[in-house]
Amino acid sequence: MKRLVLLRHGESAWNKENRFTGWTNVPLSEQGIQEAKKAGKVLKKEGYSFRRAYTSYLNRAIKTLWLALEEMDMMWIEERKSWRLNEKHYGNLQGLNKAETAQKYGDEKVLMWRRSFDIPPEPLAEDDERNPRFDPRYAELKPEELPLTESLKEVIERMLPFWESEIKPSLEEMGDLLVAAHGNSLRALVMHLKGMSEEEIIKFNIPTGIPYVFEFDDNMNFIKDYFLGDPEEVKKLMEQVANQAKGK
Amino acid sequence: MKRLVLLRHGESAWNKENRFTGWTNVPLSEQGIQEAKKAGKVLKKEGYSFRRAYTSYLNRAIKTLWLALEEMDMMWIEERKSWRLNEKHYGNLQGLNKAETAQKYGDEKVLMWRRSFDIPPEPLAEDDERNPRFDPRYAELKPEELPLTESLKEVIERMLPFWESEIKPSLEEMGDLLVAAHGNSLRALVMHLKGMSEEEIIKFNIPTGIPYVFEFDDNMNFIKDYFLGDPEEVKKLMEQVANQAKGK
Repeated sequence: MKRLVLLRHGESAWNKENRFTGWTNVPLSEQGIQEAKKAGKVLKKEGYSFRRAYTSYLNRAIKTLWLALEEMDMMWIEERKSWRLNEKHYGNLQGLNKAETAQKYGDEKVLMWRRSFDIPPEPLAEDDERNPRFDPRYAELKPEELPLTESLKEVIERMLPFWESEIKPSLEEMGDLLVAAHGNSLRALVMHLKGMSEEEIIKFNIPTGIPYVFEFDDNMNFIKDYFLGDPEEVKKLMEQVANQAKGK
Repeated sequence: MKRLVLLRHGESAWNKENRFTGWTNVPLSEQGIQEAKKAGKVLKKEGYSFRRAYTSYLNRAIKTLWLALEEMDMMWIEERKSWRLNEKHYGNLQGLNKAETAQKYGDEKVLMWRRSFDIPPEPLAEDDERNPRFDPRYAELKPEELPLTESLKEVIERMLPFWESEIKPSLEEMGDLLVAAHGNSLRALVMHLKGMSEEEIIKFNIPTGIPYVFEFDDNMNFIKDYFLGDPEEVKKLMEQVANQAKGK
């Protein structure tokens, strides 16, 4: 049996301010730090052991991984980071709060951007200082790989090659793996693993700070998925998420 | 020009208790945490930028790296960890404090173990629970690679292949590199880089928490070495270390 554990980072400084974050590199809030530590404690208690972990290029996911590994006494394991696990790029919305956004673009447009599978928010201008080409961490990307905005569909398109070429072979080789990332990059993975429709994935919210386990048999056939943590809390979460997926 | 930056971790929980640590996985003390953050601040202020960093399998060095990278906003860079950068294994002394050690083995023997280049402390028994073969992080080592004790000479012998096969080629490829490690694994590197004698290296103490820079030209010829930080503090440190190296 092989287990893939997904961990969505918790609250960041901008969640609290209700601002679109995307590729902006904001730190975890104190609550986000506590969520990451709690996830590490749960994984340790449940006896999980990893030799390799994946995360994005964004501080809030990396810090979540580090805090969880520290709780598990597994700081020594191999870490592999990739921009392909980054959050969805929110284009010109990055940095704006919801009120500002509604004012600037109108409620209808904002709702569409937030709910649509394949319509990306308005892109950044080429020379916008938020363009990832100005950030040294993306210096090795090809020009056509650097997003100025992204739809969920585009997140899936840049995430899946990393699943196929990196995470999946690692899982086959090593047994158990941990992936600490973001709401939308993890959604992309969940959609693929569970064969969800576009409508299902748009409504599917991954809870933050709760290890989300996918079990596979030795031939990499998906067996089942479940959350780890306090049984009552987990039961509530699973019902919520199941209802979302049903589109209720 | 290429720059190799060595960073020795600061105070750990057992430094405060005056106990031999070696491969024991003790955390940094609060002071050690502050030393690591300060090192990150200095590196940032001096404009250092890395795309890859090395550290050991021991929490106190890894945490030092993480704290420094967080201060530098470089959490995203590639990290490579190796047991070959671990502290010297202190054999049966691990966990004992100096008073206990002197009582158990006599002052003379303890002095010899601490000052000798090639006489290792008394080894652990094969079935001692401190034997690294019981620790999952060393599961991939060959039996002959697992130490039960080490002299500085043996640290050099297991560290140098990692310099030759990993760190040196990375430096040639990437320009600047950061290595966060331990007193004795860094000593091994310094002895090699500066062509020191056995007597010189035994007397050479690397200060904790102070970035120690080695400059090379593009043909990897060593140019010069220096510490980074407050000019007064650095001047004092360089004099101290120079005097140690002269055997005064």
